[in-house]
Amino acid sequence: MTQPFLDTFAPLAERPDTPLYRQLYERVQAAIAAGTLSPGDRMPSARALAKELGVARGTIELAYSLLTSEGYLLARGQAGTVVNPQLQLQALATPSAPPPSDARPGDETPDVLWRPSQLLPFQMGVSALDAFPRKIWARLGARYLRGMRPADMDYPPPHGLPSLRSAIASYLQVSRGIDCGAHQVFITSGWRSSLAFVAHALLSPGGRAWVEDPGYPLTRQILRQFGLEPVPVRVDAQGIDVQHGIAQAGDAQLAVVTPAHQSPLSMALSLPRRQALLDWAATHDAWVVEDDYDGEYRYASRPLPALASLDRHGRVFYAGTFSKVLFPSIRLGYLVVPQAQVATFERVGRALFAAATPTMTQAIVADFIAEGHFARHIQRMRRLYGERRAETIAALERGLEGRLRVEPSPGGMHLVLRLPGERSDRPLADRLLADGIAVQALSRWSASAQPDSALLLSFTNCTSPAQAQRLGELIRQAL
Amino acid sequence: MTQPFLDTFAPLAERPDTPLYRQLYERVQAAIAAGTLSPGDRMPSARALAKELGVARGTIELAYSLLTSEGYLLARGQAGTVVNPQLQLQALATPSAPPPSDARPGDETPDVLWRPSQLLPFQMGVSALDAFPRKIWARLGARYLRGMRPADMDYPPPHGLPSLRSAIASYLQVSRGIDCGAHQVFITSGWRSSLAFVAHALLSPGGRAWVEDPGYPLTRQILRQFGLEPVPVRVDAQGIDVQHGIAQAGDAQLAVVTPAHQSPLSMALSLPRRQALLDWAATHDAWVVEDDYDGEYRYASRPLPALASLDRHGRVFYAGTFSKVLFPSIRLGYLVVPQAQVATFERVGRALFAAATPTMTQAIVADFIAEGHFARHIQRMRRLYGERRAETIAALERGLEGRLRVEPSPGGMHLVLRLPGERSDRPLADRLLADGIAVQALSRWSASAQPDSALLLSFTNCTSPAQAQRLGELIRQAL
Repeated sequence: MTQPFLDTFAPLAERPDTPLYRQLYERVQAAIAAGTLSPGDRMPSARALAKELGVARGTIELAYSLLTSEGYLLARGQAGTVVNPQLQLQALATPSAPPPSDARPGDETPDVLWRPSQLLPFQMGVSALDAFPRKIWARLGARYLRGMRPADMDYPPPHGLPSLRSAIASYLQVSRGIDCGAHQVFITSGWRSSLAFVAHALLSPGGRAWVEDPGYPLTRQILRQFGLEPVPVRVDAQGIDVQHGIAQAGDAQLAVVTPAHQSPLSMALSLPRRQALLDWAATHDAWVVEDDYDGEYRYASRPLPALASLDRHGRVFYAGTFSKVLFPSIRLGYLVVPQAQVATFERVGRALFAAATPTMTQAIVADFIAEGHFARHIQRMRRLYGERRAETIAALERGLEGRLRVEPSPGGMHLVLRLPGERSDRPLADRLLADGIAVQALSRWSASAQPDSALLLSFTNCTSPAQAQRLGELIRQAL
Repeated sequence: MTQPFLDTFAPLAERPDTPLYRQLYERVQAAIAAGTLSPGDRMPSARALAKELGVARGTIELAYSLLTSEGYLLARGQAGTVVNPQLQLQALATPSAPPPSDARPGDETPDVLWRPSQLLPFQMGVSALDAFPRKIWARLGARYLRGMRPADMDYPPPHGLPSLRSAIASYLQVSRGIDCGAHQVFITSGWRSSLAFVAHALLSPGGRAWVEDPGYPLTRQILRQFGLEPVPVRVDAQGIDVQHGIAQAGDAQLAVVTPAHQSPLSMALSLPRRQALLDWAATHDAWVVEDDYDGEYRYASRPLPALASLDRHGRVFYAGTFSKVLFPSIRLGYLVVPQAQVATFERVGRALFAAATPTMTQAIVADFIAEGHFARHIQRMRRLYGERRAETIAALERGLEGRLRVEPSPGGMHLVLRLPGERSDRPLADRLLADGIAVQALSRWSASAQPDSALLLSFTNCTSPAQAQRLGELIRQAL
């Protein structure tokens, strides 16, 4: 190692605004840009550097994997990690990021949307990957590939594979009480493209849209991308407060809601509120998008019918995703469109949102549903998640030794752990992330100036009660 | 059959504006909406109805398959075709399309973007599906599925799978002369999302963008979706006329070009023009997007290096797609970003365009490239397309009996057949489509008030010289 190398790997300082892994990440980037680290240079091993800097090995690994995923470093297995030999130094030496003033509204990436490049414990929004029926999936996939004909290789039908649209319509009828035909089901690549589809087809730039507060940050970003102004509407024990929404923005074009389990607080939208929301939409010619990201996962009782099943005026778009009930890397979702809007969505979809999902994915999922694997998988996951949830809560509370209690909730895929003190969740979440634990700070999901403070943590991948207990201990020590 | 049924299937009139299949399509929709046809009603067979109406069976099949893909009809194999029993009549009876005044600019779907629901002879933009190495593909796919681990099921890395980004960077270096690192390659779901990515990251609504005239209609649509004004710039034998572009809109933010084979006229952009375009971009801080949709397919000589390989000022974005070199249903493309813009695209991509492509697709393609199948496939296709092209031209000209000649071109995946008379291509293309032949009218790719008239027809799937000869005869008879 040459002398300047030492700067790069000088001790890291505890700074509340920048977690340790990110400090290291930035230093390595800077060293490469400055030429201190050259393409082909070998990096110290994570173990050695962790010891050297006195931080957790997970911190180093997180920084390395981030740098690797972005092409700065190259992992060479046994041969260790090196600076990517393909990096073009001259180009790198010029400043690569535009000044912040270039950023356009809606472009900001809140930390909450940042994801580590590997799956970390308690990470939100990821199904139980260990429990997915991979053998069945591989069998259906191999069968599809063996039987693939030229017609399967042409452009996919613009609104989705007919067999998949039919399978989803039948499933929704039975499991979510939605009375729809296959022609109302439009295949998308997930929530992002479903919401963008509605925004593009029906909404005018400059309009306003209710979003739940706290609520999913990506939703606000997508709306801004389409020139819409998200109006935060508070939620309480009954879900979104419709009267508050009307007072804030009665003339909004749209309300985006999570009726099954409010995202992220997990309460269900009460029946009176559902009715009030539908009444507002019908009388104001407003639209409602129901984001039913995990409606199947309810442990206290049967899943509730979807809001769309109560819609008598054709105002509700129902958005579903396979990210949560199958697995996230599948990139497949759908939008159920009220009958009177089908022609508009066919037109817009054909022009602008057509056929973004590979036929192979659509065909395998259609078979998975039609042959009954889907319904069985959801049943099994409902049971498994109920167990993992109970175990995680028990272990976490053991570690917490009574200092805090997990908030009771009827369903969903994550837990809410309230903390004392406004915004106290952020430094704690950052510190835990540096230790390789991916909990999220509730205050980052909030638009309010005085947000509640809580940690959000998923239990679906938590297979080790010891890990949950350890997390409880870390939180207790930090309080 | 009840009496009102007869109206629906009364003889079709030859109307220049509406092909026969579409007249039938609209009649069936209207009959269902009016209740004349009810859910569950059995439709006459295509053969019987073709005989009854005195039109080609392909016309009826085209209308039926369109109606089936949109959920109006249901094909029940041996049991025939019925009106979809799941259709909700009451809803259908209400007008389903908004009045045209509701349409927003950029929403129009020109006929040229409409695609039949099945692959028809001579259809543009589809690779030789019969010649794809399906067995190798199935083997790689099955291997991926067998080895799928939980980490492969988590959200894909936001900018694409590292192995795929590396494989593409290496391929571009060798085959297109582009000197880029893996971190400059951003995976997308195709041209649509690549261009949208650039528009969102760098361009301001209200700005102008050069597009080639004639040129790909979808490009103009995507630009309009982002609030940009497409400025048609004429093309001549050397490709886009840069001086004309500067005279029309020297202050444009962007130029979208197809340098390898102009889309749709197939000439290459000359070296002086390439230099003039790059000079304009550098001096005006404008961006260039190079749409290299079929650059590999050149028969007269070696493929030309990409425009991006000449770029010394970091102004050119290179957009590639696997739709043409593999197959369209794969929905996979990529964007190569100049080094100085990488940080911006990482930020915007993470927030808004992240991870739309399933990991499975990305992983199989990465293996396909890394194991040499990709390069071999392109070599084989270049040879095959050269042969099919020569055979198709010969057969077509036999059928034409010297009345017209195919325009010579050095590469690409389709032929240009000039017709006498402005816009005479549209009624002819419509008539041929009604006969199940999917040629396109050049004038529909043009923004000019006095467009050239020609038919565009792809030879990549043309396995039957007899079919091409027949097409030549049909055209000759129609002249």
